[in-house]
Amino acid sequence: MSLIVQKYGGTSVGSPERIENVAGKAAAFRAQGHDVVVVVSAMSGETNRLVALAGAIDDQPDSRELDVLLSTGEQVTIALLAMALKKRGVAARSFTGGQVHIRTDSAHNKARIVDIDKQRVSAALAAGEVVVVAGFQGVDDSGNITTLGRGGSDTTAVALAAALSADECQIYTDVDGVYTTDPRVVPEARRLDRITFEEMLEMASLGSKVLQIRAVEFAGKYDVPLRVLSSFEEGEGTLITYEEEGMEQALISGIAFNRDEAKLTVLGVPDHPGVAHRILGPVGAANIEVDMIIQNVGADGTTDFTFTVHRNDFVRAREVLDSVAAELGARQVDGDDKIVKVSLVGVGMRSHAGIASRMFEILADEGINIRMISTSEIKVSVVIDEKYLELGVRALHTGFELAQEAGTNI
Amino acid sequence: MSLIVQKYGGTSVGSPERIENVAGKAAAFRAQGHDVVVVVSAMSGETNRLVALAGAIDDQPDSRELDVLLSTGEQVTIALLAMALKKRGVAARSFTGGQVHIRTDSAHNKARIVDIDKQRVSAALAAGEVVVVAGFQGVDDSGNITTLGRGGSDTTAVALAAALSADECQIYTDVDGVYTTDPRVVPEARRLDRITFEEMLEMASLGSKVLQIRAVEFAGKYDVPLRVLSSFEEGEGTLITYEEEGMEQALISGIAFNRDEAKLTVLGVPDHPGVAHRILGPVGAANIEVDMIIQNVGADGTTDFTFTVHRNDFVRAREVLDSVAAELGARQVDGDDKIVKVSLVGVGMRSHAGIASRMFEILADEGINIRMISTSEIKVSVVIDEKYLELGVRALHTGFELAQEAGTNI
Repeated sequence: MSLIVQKYGGTSVGSPERIENVAGKAAAFRAQGHDVVVVVSAMSGETNRLVALAGAIDDQPDSRELDVLLSTGEQVTIALLAMALKKRGVAARSFTGGQVHIRTDSAHNKARIVDIDKQRVSAALAAGEVVVVAGFQGVDDSGNITTLGRGGSDTTAVALAAALSADECQIYTDVDGVYTTDPRVVPEARRLDRITFEEMLEMASLGSKVLQIRAVEFAGKYDVPLRVLSSFEEGEGTLITYEEEGMEQALISGIAFNRDEAKLTVLGVPDHPGVAHRILGPVGAANIEVDMIIQNVGADGTTDFTFTVHRNDFVRAREVLDSVAAELGARQVDGDDKIVKVSLVGVGMRSHAGIASRMFEILADEGINIRMISTSEIKVSVVIDEKYLELGVRALHTGFELAQEAGTNI
Repeated sequence: MSLIVQKYGGTSVGSPERIENVAGKAAAFRAQGHDVVVVVSAMSGETNRLVALAGAIDDQPDSRELDVLLSTGEQVTIALLAMALKKRGVAARSFTGGQVHIRTDSAHNKARIVDIDKQRVSAALAAGEVVVVAGFQGVDDSGNITTLGRGGSDTTAVALAAALSADECQIYTDVDGVYTTDPRVVPEARRLDRITFEEMLEMASLGSKVLQIRAVEFAGKYDVPLRVLSSFEEGEGTLITYEEEGMEQALISGIAFNRDEAKLTVLGVPDHPGVAHRILGPVGAANIEVDMIIQNVGADGTTDFTFTVHRNDFVRAREVLDSVAAELGARQVDGDDKIVKVSLVGVGMRSHAGIASRMFEILADEGINIRMISTSEIKVSVVIDEKYLELGVRALHTGFELAQEAGTNI
């Protein structure tokens, strides 16, 4: 017998019928003798309905009151799910975030969990009840209702699993696991049985949208085994854990990509100390987040400075740069918002050289020009023209034999 | 400067526009320097929507979870109203029933308020905030969410007013006060400026639907001046207080009536001690509520026993009586579900004889046969055939000159 925390998102609880389906799944685990905690989101569409109500009152609604409003969404779901469990004869009890003391800071609409008093959940589990908890919400020290921001239900589930030392935290969603890459781009993409926290973090931050980054970070920090599964299909999903000794590890776990990129280059900047700061300082001050940064020193005592931003920030960033470039005596500002980032992710890179150069070779063979390169211990990212995205991802997926279970060796 | 508790029902907060209207009213009182506490119901239609969701899961949904579900209705309203106040620059803060510690017993769906910890509301008022409280809900000693049953928001408002020693509790609704009788039956019915708690209780329990009985009882018990006003029209409404010394009191305050009545008679019951109990015991055991009860002793050592029930219980009550009558050796069971109850209410009856006989005279002049009579210190009720309802009520309204401000003298 083990303790399992399950989380079901808005689509999975989007109608009374789907809530019945979730009750059936939770009841089946309970019938196997497991202790079960279920974390749920608002029914799909409900949060948008509530946001629209607030918008009808004020287009900048008060953030404290917005949390009071939005937190009702999950409260509806926990009540309905507990009803559905009890109808099946399964002892169950619902709890709001406040009722199980999910204590957060006071940053309304984007609060962070500070701690969870597990006493109430443990007592209900000890009484044989399936515990149904509202995701996405908590209370601050003054008893004000807070929300964790969209997607926060994943974080609630992981935080509960950590507090209760659960054996597994299962995230049910509308996909049946983590894939080697997006199956809409590469039809032969393969579901991974396992992936490490570090790889999952890279995949998530590089544009794979299966899990919230904060939830993965949290799970990694507290060593909570995380499993991504489908609410609608049977299957084992993908287990996210730490790398185990002696575990057969594929070189490459997957290929992530991100379409929302744009790059900016300041050309011919006189190369003095502090140039990077004088360029990026004003960009940061304008609240624009910078991703990849590259600086090449030229022969003539000037340097070319390139970085990427979210495509939505492209125009604003360019305006900032134009005035910065003038101050610095730079030659020119260039920009391109038709680029994408493609990344290979895999902990196997730690012990195998040559992966980056194999990647560049595969892309070169397809005639794809690489605009920028950035590497970390477990990933290699390249920026390429947007039009080459699908071609490049497919070539890499084939070249590294990701459709095969064993992965590739070089 | 005084402390005012205002309560707005579901129709009054039925849309964002109407919530803005409520915010305007509350803000106006605040601008006059009053401390203001606003209690709100769920937006009209919302409770029914939530009940339908529960019904889609289980036609007998768990009562604890139903309260978790239904309490979200008022929570939506408090958030929207607080937003609307803040948008107007009025300091405001919303509270759920749990947040202001409206402590109830654990009778889910029909809980009773045990006490209110006024500390949190007082602190917010002291900070200059308009306090917005969710009606209809509370928490029990274990922190479970409870609801007071439909209409419970009136009770919340009165209980808060009592706890805070408010100067007035204003109940905003879709009518502009308490009338001498239903204006749909008697167009010249007049709004009363004042009415006593006792009269209001009789009016409410006799079928006048302006206020919940429990709220009036509560207000009377804690001597909270209660005012019924319209959310949509200006006006002073009707003030409900204790009778004041020297106050010019009309003989009759109003005429209440109830269409949902049925009567049953057991004829020719051998008249032994305990007969009433042997007849009404099984009726009560079948969970049927009995209203008026009349027993006439006949000359032949038998008695006729008549009582009224809600029309919905008529068939079941008759079945119970048929078997009881056989056991008792009664001659026959008669029934009529086409009857109504009409009542005159007025504290003036205490000091004036002859009101009942004047009532019977007026009805006799219209050829209306009286089937049953029941009196209390401040009311006279008669049961008449349903077809005479409008005729009887109009004749009494005219006969007692209720359309005139001063009322009648006999």
